[in-house]
This record gives sequence, structure tokens and C-alpha cells, in this order.
Amino acid sequence: MRTFIDDNFLLHSDTAKRLYHDYAKPCPIIDYHCHLPPADIAADRSFDNLFEIWLAGDHYKWRTMRSNGISERFCTGDALPYEKFLAFAQTVPRALRSPLYHWTHLELLRYFGIEELLDSGSAPHIWERANELLAEPDFRVRRLLERFAVQVVCTTDDPADDLSAHQSIAATEGMTTKVFPTFRPDKALRVDQPEAFNAWLVALEKTSRHDCSSFVGFLRALESRHDTFHELGARLSDHGLERCPGHFATEKKARKIFEAALSGKAASPDDAEKFAGFMMLFFGRLDAVRGWTKQLHLGALRGNNTRAARDLGPDSGYDSIGDWSHAKPLARYLDHLDSEGCLPKTILYNVNPADNYVFGTMIGNFQEGPTAGKVQFGSGWWFLDQKEGMEWQINALSNLGLLSRFVGMLTDSRSFLSYPRHEYFRRILCNRLGREIEDRELPADFDLIGGLVRDVCHDNAASYFGFAT
Amino acid sequence: MRTFIDDNFLLHSDTAKRLYHDYAKPCPIIDYHCHLPPADIAADRSFDNLFEIWLAGDHYKWRTMRSNGISERFCTGDALPYEKFLAFAQTVPRALRSPLYHWTHLELLRYFGIEELLDSGSAPHIWERANELLAEPDFRVRRLLERFAVQVVCTTDDPADDLSAHQSIAATEGMTTKVFPTFRPDKALRVDQPEAFNAWLVALEKTSRHDCSSFVGFLRALESRHDTFHELGARLSDHGLERCPGHFATEKKARKIFEAALSGKAASPDDAEKFAGFMMLFFGRLDAVRGWTKQLHLGALRGNNTRAARDLGPDSGYDSIGDWSHAKPLARYLDHLDSEGCLPKTILYNVNPADNYVFGTMIGNFQEGPTAGKVQFGSGWWFLDQKEGMEWQINALSNLGLLSRFVGMLTDSRSFLSYPRHEYFRRILCNRLGREIEDRELPADFDLIGGLVRDVCHDNAASYFGFAT
Amino acid sequence: MRTFIDDNFLLHSDTAKRLYHDYAKPCPIIDYHCHLPPADIAADRSFDNLFEIWLAGDHYKWRTMRSNGISERFCTGDALPYEKFLAFAQTVPRALRSPLYHWTHLELLRYFGIEELLDSGSAPHIWERANELLAEPDFRVRRLLERFAVQVVCTTDDPADDLSAHQSIAATEGMTTKVFPTFRPDKALRVDQPEAFNAWLVALEKTSRHDCSSFVGFLRALESRHDTFHELGARLSDHGLERCPGHFATEKKARKIFEAALSGKAASPDDAEKFAGFMMLFFGRLDAVRGWTKQLHLGALRGNNTRAARDLGPDSGYDSIGDWSHAKPLARYLDHLDSEGCLPKTILYNVNPADNYVFGTMIGNFQEGPTAGKVQFGSGWWFLDQKEGMEWQINALSNLGLLSRFVGMLTDSRSFLSYPRHEYFRRILCNRLGREIEDRELPADFDLIGGLVRDVCHDNAASYFGFAT
Repeated sequence: MRTFIDDNFLLHSDTAKRLYHDYAKPCPIIDYHCHLPPADIAADRSFDNLFEIWLAGDHYKWRTMRSNGISERFCTGDALPYEKFLAFAQTVPRALRSPLYHWTHLELLRYFGIEELLDSGSAPHIWERANELLAEPDFRVRRLLERFAVQVVCTTDDPADDLSAHQSIAATEGMTTKVFPTFRPDKALRVDQPEAFNAWLVALEKTSRHDCSSFVGFLRALESRHDTFHELGARLSDHGLERCPGHFATEKKARKIFEAALSGKAASPDDAEKFAGFMMLFFGRLDAVRGWTKQLHLGALRGNNTRAARDLGPDSGYDSIGDWSHAKPLARYLDHLDSEGCLPKTILYNVNPADNYVFGTMIGNFQEGPTAGKVQFGSGWWFLDQKEGMEWQINALSNLGLLSRFVGMLTDSRSFLSYPRHEYFRRILCNRLGREIEDRELPADFDLIGGLVRDVCHDNAASYFGFAT
Repeated sequence: MRTFIDDNFLLHSDTAKRLYHDYAKPCPIIDYHCHLPPADIAADRSFDNLFEIWLAGDHYKWRTMRSNGISERFCTGDALPYEKFLAFAQTVPRALRSPLYHWTHLELLRYFGIEELLDSGSAPHIWERANELLAEPDFRVRRLLERFAVQVVCTTDDPADDLSAHQSIAATEGMTTKVFPTFRPDKALRVDQPEAFNAWLVALEKTSRHDCSSFVGFLRALESRHDTFHELGARLSDHGLERCPGHFATEKKARKIFEAALSGKAASPDDAEKFAGFMMLFFGRLDAVRGWTKQLHLGALRGNNTRAARDLGPDSGYDSIGDWSHAKPLARYLDHLDSEGCLPKTILYNVNPADNYVFGTMIGNFQEGPTAGKVQFGSGWWFLDQKEGMEWQINALSNLGLLSRFVGMLTDSRSFLSYPRHEYFRRILCNRLGREIEDRELPADFDLIGGLVRDVCHDNAASYFGFAT
Repeated sequence: MRTFIDDNFLLHSDTAKRLYHDYAKPCPIIDYHCHLPPADIAADRSFDNLFEIWLAGDHYKWRTMRSNGISERFCTGDALPYEKFLAFAQTVPRALRSPLYHWTHLELLRYFGIEELLDSGSAPHIWERANELLAEPDFRVRRLLERFAVQVVCTTDDPADDLSAHQSIAATEGMTTKVFPTFRPDKALRVDQPEAFNAWLVALEKTSRHDCSSFVGFLRALESRHDTFHELGARLSDHGLERCPGHFATEKKARKIFEAALSGKAASPDDAEKFAGFMMLFFGRLDAVRGWTKQLHLGALRGNNTRAARDLGPDSGYDSIGDWSHAKPLARYLDHLDSEGCLPKTILYNVNPADNYVFGTMIGNFQEGPTAGKVQFGSGWWFLDQKEGMEWQINALSNLGLLSRFVGMLTDSRSFLSYPRHEYFRRILCNRLGREIEDRELPADFDLIGGLVRDVCHDNAASYFGFAT
């Protein structure tokens, strides 16, 4: 069956169409947060088949297939790539009204020009056609980025990573997409898991060439990595936390907790939070000094299925949304840095939409000139990266802060086929604005509203992050 | 005044109308969770007047009347049936925009063919007309079920109940509606209320013919009742809990808590949770072994009004919505069973809409083939059983899971006049889908979308629960 | 540029227009909760310029300006009034989709007849024109109230306030607006801040002429102030609390906590909650005895920015939304009073929209005749005082309680230019109702629905509060 996605997909008024086509669509993409593998970009990887580029690493798809009663063999197991693709194809028509249904067909259309809907009937043909195209030079990684006018990609990297892929990318001539690392030191907080922590320290030591057997050496190693990231163009850090720590160990206390972990003793939950608090202040100061932007991804409840965690490891589709209180500890953390004059630009992301208004008002407590939108309420993330989730975030930000200062969309994706997510976001944004202009809730001034569209789709991000160009 | 409810009530597009009339409307009803009294079905009860069938046991109506300033005498007190009906009639026009306003007029229309709106003016006539009809054979309980094409009714029953009404129903010839019990052992957890617990144990002992003076005997009694329920066709259990227990007593610890309660000593809140945790694992295994579906109704804050609790007892309209954190304990419970390979099919119901996304993602952590939609996010329940509540649940499920695998609507009602709730749900579902087809957010494929409608309205429930037919 | 606000602003159907223009618009205003300074009313203040009446005390505007990167000098600092106005004017076009954008232009239009949109270009002309008008008698405070048909204003007053401004207003001849104080004893709970508490006690002692060096004297002082407020027409109390206390000190315990605070010893958080619990019961009884209405404003997380708190003090735009559990303590408090037969009429306001359904159902636990809508779910407050916030509250109340018994909108404002907020609310209400009539979800009965509109916009408040007229 032919796709329902046309030029005016999600644009339900003439004004929305004009806003999208004249203002949003021409904007290049700044993908300031994603999980693309830099090694693939360095190698300018090509893909053998649709499974490899589309299904192999995608826990969204596995999760959906499991919900459809597909056995694990066809998700992450030992079935053949084509068998897995067929299992996915069979699931797609069952995913009506899900974001995956829209993403799937947008991706087939925009990358492969495939106008059929994916199901068991169309699967063989689509497999064949896509695989043919994947063999062409236009489907190598760098061309995929270029074709979507991706100006900037920020990957997500561990401080212990040697960034060799990023060095190789930086040395590549003629790339139109800038690719930068992002400093994500989640493992630096794992004093409650001494074994993993110590293994990671070894890697950090090796990469940083700093002795990590003392706390001060550990901090120096991290700072030196932050420096190296900066030299390679990094302008963002990122943290994935259940909740932001709201209590802060003294340096002395933090050192003791560190030393205990070094000797194999796991920190208590209370000590682990205080240690995290100390470290997060430390990281905040690093970001503030270098003019970086700090990202906090808060609220995911991870690894809920012990069986799957054992068999498949993390990020295999067994995470969900938590329901913690965030307001007080988050305020305390931001206030602590602000009181020191060390609050960096910050983006707060929540994954529970019930927290939208908490996050949308929290940012207002720490705004200050001259940076417009210094603290940002980040775009709908993970489970919220879909129409209702994005509209809720856009509305909350509009009602509680300044939509016009929003740095906009990011993919957060592990896949090179996810760039239509920016299109999806832009259509949703233009649709809301178009509706409201036609309803006379906004002025019918295309310079004004079109300008807002351009700012949110591209220009704000360009000026906010300060990437080297 | 004439009703505003016409054939296309709640259907705001031509596509919605087609989906409803061609696909949803013809589906029979599987009412897999309700609180209908099985004795009334066994006796094929008839009703003397509209008060008896409509107002006598309905805490929704009492609650609304109290909000309208009606004194208790006319809600649950000693006023005459007709006086109470008049007090209700006077309240109805005050309930504009409430679900009760829609339910009331749908019920008058669909059962009695009454096209007038209920108010003080129309009350005398409506009372008279409805009472005339109630005397007819078509208004006996079994005909009421038949007239609404109710294929299956699952009542809600205590393990200590002797199920004699269900036995009598099972022995009845010529009933087109299958009626099954549901195993709801809430009282088995009440070790914090030894007096009530012990009284209930006596009843359980009597019904089960197992000695309940030992913990092992108690567990055997419950298991034997589960067996008996199964023989009578039960395929679901149900639990009403503020929060799912997330800590689990060992058998030894559970036995001690049981023995203390037996001797009149109330369990501490902490012990009561752990005991509940042990029992809920026990019940989960029973359901898993027999292929049942477990229902968890979570989040209600009950009995808030001490005065009313004393005077009127439970379920008299003084419950409301709680705001606990559910994610962690719920994940722990489901994971514990899953780790044992004993997670039954499960339906999670939340009553606080702020928890929709937590529940909608929680189910995804425990999906596995071959059962499609093994863990379900249940339809909007209680305070959420209305248009915005149902739309929120439908949207959350669509965005976070698979709407197409949803087992759909149930009445959860104590009244034989509640079957239009299924119609209400179906219209709301078709209206959403119709809107999105017309907006080109879904393919205009009636086989596909109409198939989804049929699945959600009937077919999924038919295949999911495995009722004997 | 010309404003987009016309006669039918926010009214998207013919039915909505008719409801607004025929039923809502003619209703006078009862502003039963605001923060207008009574001294300004007593003095019939006039204003030198637009800054003074519009920007000088408005933390909403400062907060928005900071989000736009405006430096503090132009918000609360030493810049000139006109410079601050220009900084605000430059921010306004950046506030598209925010409530401030609508409020700003509604206020310019309704008070000053200014039809231009405010931005840097129009600012000089608007400044000049508005300042000319402000010099006219029609722009003195009392005329501003009269011009908006404000029948009643309830200010918010500390028990230690001598109410001299209110006495002066009461003695003024010819005022068409009744102005009453509201009893807001937040400072009576501050036993955790002995210094501030004791300073306030001195003021209370002075105003009340009761010795506050004993607990019983303290209670008598408060009761005598309650009496004086009553004599001046007060019929409401108000409390701003993070959470409603759910534990209640005995009188003996409360006395000890009081005495400790008197001697400079700060109460522990636990003791402070219990003391608050005791006092809130005491205040509840005072309100019940005199037939007052108690208001609870719950859920704000205040003073998040230590730097700003030190430099600017409270209420300067650094508050946000908290995420506490409210249901249990709130139920306990209301139940405690209800059990004593001392529950006054009560309005519950929440500031976190995730709590809407908790609050919307909580009120139903304590409704009783003969007062219709005895416990109210208050209108969208603070961050919720905008279109989506108000619609959510209206919908939650409609689905969970009785919209028709709602006492409606209030400004909660510190500004004499905020009365178009009532218009804003009324348009939003009529727009919802109009849409639903046209969609045949409500009967097309203008007497019925128009009557509801009138009740919510004016008549319910008039009958509910029992102001002296």
C-alpha cells in the first residue's frame, strides 16, 4: 500500500504549510546530542543490508517486536538478518499510532524513496530495493549526513575513550559535517559498583596518562580529558541520572568514598549520592570555565528486567520511566553552582511528562543575562520523542519560559537513518504555530513567527553552543 | 428537552462514523472485569423501579449529589426511592461536562428508549416510563446482558466466597452470556487488621475445607480455591492495592507474620508490605501455572472520610486518587516473577493519570513472545473512565506500546445498566482514529484500521484471556 | 503592528461567541483573591508612568526578561524606568505563545485602547500614549476597578497588619467596589525561623493588643485578629504551604514548640510540621465557626536561587513548581476537621498540573449538603494561569466534580491592570463549551449552558462566599 506521508504531512493548515516549507525546511541540522558511533563516521562506513543499518542496534524496534509477541530469536537472537527484517515488517502494521510507525515510513521515504508501507507483503521488495541502494556511495555514512544537511554532530563519549575516531574525523579533508565528542562521565560516579569502577579507572588512567590511584589524580585525569575533548571541539557534557544529586560530599568525604571504592568497598546509597554530588559540582565547574553546555538527562528507570540484563546487557529495551521527585535536589544542585558563579549553560531533559511543569519552571530560577535562554528545558526525549510528547514540551516551554529561545531538536539516536526526526519535530512545531495564527491566537506576521521557526530549528543552537566553525 | 445524543454521538468525522458503524458497533462485548452481583444473574433478577437498578448502589451518583449540596438523606439515607430519584434528577443538569451526564442519558436512551434529558421537569415522566419497562421480561438481568450482546461477564469474587451463584449460573441452560468468577484475594493481605483477617480466615476455612490455622494450610486453602475458580471458568485474578509491594518476605518470615496476625497481633506497615509481597508472588505463580491473567488496580486512596467510613462503610463515594511512586516496586514485583519464569499475563491499571507514562512504559519491560501484548496497560479506570481519561490512556498506550494488541474496555461496574460504557469507549476510539485518517496521520486503509478497531473492541480479548467457550 | 486580538479572541465557534458575548461578558467581577495593596486603594493612587503601574512590582515580567538574556539592571536594578520599559518591550516579541504575550496586549488594549503590538519599534509611542492616559482621573485606582465592574476585591493580609487601609476604604463614600481583607497567617507557622517569628510576634502583639508571650495569648491574639478581619468584611482565609501538614501536635506539644521558638530555638522540620498541623486545625475551626472559606495554595517551591534571595528578597521571580505527594496529608487534614464537624468551606489550589486529578478527586471526599460545592478545586493558579493550565483545571473539575458549582476565576495579582485575566478565563471557558455544543457533546440549550457560564463567572462566587453587600 502507498504511504500516507505527503509533502504536507502533519501540517493541517495553509499557514502551517507555509511556515514549514518557507522557514523550517531549508534550515540545516545541528544534531547537538546523539549516540552515533564516531568510528563509523571515521571509516565512512557502508552497510550490507537494511538489517545492519536499521535493526541491528535499535532497542526501540526490539521492544516493539516483543510487544507484538515476536520471540527473542528474531529480535536479538540468532535468526538470520532477513528473518529478523521479516519479523519487524510483520510488526509494523501492528504499530499503528506509534511513533515507530511514522519514523519507519519517513525513513524509508526520505532515505530510500520507498513509497510503500512496510508489512509482510511489501517486505521482500523493500529489502531488495533498500539493499541495492545501500551499496551506492550515497549511502555511506558521510553522504547520509551531508544529504540531510547535518552541519554538526555531537556524539556521546566516555572520558576514558581515547577519541581516536574523533581525531581521525578531524583530520579528514572535505567533510561538510562537523563532528564533535561530548563528555559523558557517568562511570565516574559508580562508587557503588567498585569492580566496574576500578576497571574503568584503569582505562581512564591509560587514556589520560594521569595516575588515578589518588583522588586528586583522578580529578586531574578527568580535567585533562575535558581539556582534550575541548581541543577536539566538544562544547557539551552529558549526564544520565535517575535523579540529580542534591547532597554534596566535602572534598575530604569524597576522597574517602573514592578510596574505599578503590579498595573494593561499595559506597552506601547515601554516600554514593553525596559522591555524585561532589563530582557533579566538579563537572559543572569544568563546563562553566570553558563555556560549555551541561546536559542532564533525568528520570529513566533502567535495567528493569534481570533476565534480559543478564542475557543481553544494558540498552536492549528494558528501560522505562521513573517517578521520582526531582524539584528539590535539582534546585539545590543548580543553586550550588549558581552561588559559586559557576553555573554553566544547562539543558534539563525529563523523561516523565508528569514532570514537564517542574522542569519548565525550574529553568526560570537560574536565567540571567547576557545569555538568552541560559538554562534550557530540553526537547522531548526517548519515550517523549513523538508527537504528543513533543507538543507537551513545546507547550510547557511556551507557557513557562521562552519558546523563541529554545535550542530545539536533537536525534539522541544510534542510527544514521534518524535524521527525519528533525523533520518530524519541525512539522509538529509549524503545525502548532500555523493553527494558532489561523485561530488568531498569534499575530499573522510571517517575519515574526517564521523567524521564531528558524531560530528554534537552527539559529538558536548555532549561537548558543559556540561550536568552532 | 430532547437529548443531544444521536447516532453519531462523539464521532466528528465521516471516517470516524464509518469506523464506528461498520467495525466497532457490531462487535459483541467481553466484559472481563466488573462488579456485577452473580446472585442477581443466577436469580435472573428483575427490578421494581429505576431507583433500585440505577441509584441504590451507585457511589458515583451519591458523590455527585453531595457535590451538588444534596443532603445525605437523599443519597444513602432514609428518603423514599422516588425522593432520591428526584434529588438525582435535580442534580443531573448540574453535572454538565461530567461523564455522569453522558452516561445517564446514554443509559436512558439505550435501555429505555427515553430521549428526554433528565431534570426536575422530566423526572416524574421518566420515573413512570422506566418503571413500566422494568416490569417487562426484557428488563430481567439476563435479557439485559443479551440485548447488549455481552458474550462474557467476569464478576469479582472473594476466595472465601462459595461461588454458589456461579455454580447455579453454570448449570443454567440457554444463557448466551458466559459468566465467570474472578479471584480477588485482597483480604488475604490484611495482616495489619488481625480482627478482620481472622474473621475472613474462618470463612475461607469453611469454603475451602482446608485448615487455615497453619500458614501452609492457609496457602493450600487459597490454592484450592484458585482451582475451584478455574473449574468454574475463571481466567483472571484481580488485586486492589495502593501500591504494588516491592519487598518480599521469605516464606519463614511470612509464616511468622501470619502466625502473629492469627494470634491477634497486627503486622507493622513494613511487615505488612513484605507479607503482601510474599503473597503476591504466591498468587502470581498460581496465575502463571494455570495460564490466567493477573490484574493490578493500583493507586486509589480509599476511605478518606472517617465520619462516612463509620456511618456508611467502604465504597460509598469517599475514595480518591493517590500520588505514590509506583515505578520501582512495580518493576521489582514483575521482575521477580519474570526471573522465576512465572510472570503471568498481566494487566496494569492506574488511577492517577500522571502515572500513565510510567505504566505505559512499564509493560514494555516484560513483553515476550509468543503472547502478543502479554503485559497490558489497562483501560482508563474509575475516575479515568471518561473521555479525556480514555483518550489519554489510548494515546499513552499508542505512543509507548501497541494499541493494536490492547484488550480494550471493561465496565468495572456494579450496575446492569452500564453496558453503554463500551459504546462510549468505542466511539471515542473511532473518533480518534477517524480524525487521524482524515488528517493523513494514518493510512486510509479501512481493512487495516477497521481491523485494529475490531481487535481492540473484541477480538484481542477473545484470544488473550482464553475463556472456555 | 496591529493587534491580533479582536472581539472574538479565543472564541473559535459561533456558539462560543454567543456564550461569551451574551452570558459571560456582562457579568461583573468578584475578585475574591488577589494581592492588590489596600493602601493604594485607600489613597486612590495614580501612577506617573507605565513602568510604575505595570513593571515595577511584576516578577512575571522580570523572570521573562531574564530568560531573554536581559541583565538584572533592567529588571530590578538601577536602570531608569524608561530603559526598563524598553528592555521589556524588546522582550515581548520573544514571548510568543506565552501567557505574558496575551496578557500584555490585552492590557494595553483594554486599559489604554492601544491596538499596536509592543516591541522595540512601538515602545516609544506606547510609553508616551499610556503615560498621557495615566494622568487622567479614569486611571486612578478606584476608577480602574469600577471600569472593569469589579464588585468585590479581597486583598491578602497578615494578621499583624493593622488594616488601617481597609478601615479607611470602608469609611470611603461612594465606592462601587467592595474591598475586604483576607486572613493569611503564614508567619504564624514559622517556628523553624525563630528570629523572624519573634519579630512578627511583636507586630502581632502590637496590633492585637494581646500578650503573645504565652501560647494561649498567642492563640487569643490570632482569634481576635480573625474577629477584626470579620468585622471589616473578610470572609476568606488563605495559606501558602509547600504541603498541607498531615500530622498534628497536641496542644501541649504545640505549646512547647512555641515556647522553644520564643526562646530562640528553631523547631525541627518534624516539629515544625506538627506545629503547623496544630495551627492549621486551629485556623480551620476559626473559619468554620464564622462561616468563612479557607484557601490552601499548595505546592510551590520558593526561593530556589540563594543569590537572588539574598540580593532581592522573596517574590522576585525565583520560585517554581514542587513535586511532593499531597494526597495523604491533605486528606488527613481535611478529615480531621470534618470529623470534628469543623470543616469550613475550602478551596484547594495546586500549582503542579500533575496533581490536578489528585486535587479534583480530593474535594469529592468532603462534599456535603446543604452547601453546593462546599469544597472547591480552585482555578489554575500562578504558572497554571494560562490557556492550557486553565483548560486542564476546567476539564479535571468537570470530569471529577461539578463545573457548574465552580466559584471561578480570581486574579491573584499585585497589579491594577490584571482584570482582563477574568476576560481571558471567560473566553477560554466559553470556547470549550461552545465547541462541545457544536460537536453535540452538550445540549444546545442556551438557558442551560448560558446559565452555567453566568454561575461560574459570577453568581456562584456571589452566593458561596457570603460577602456583606
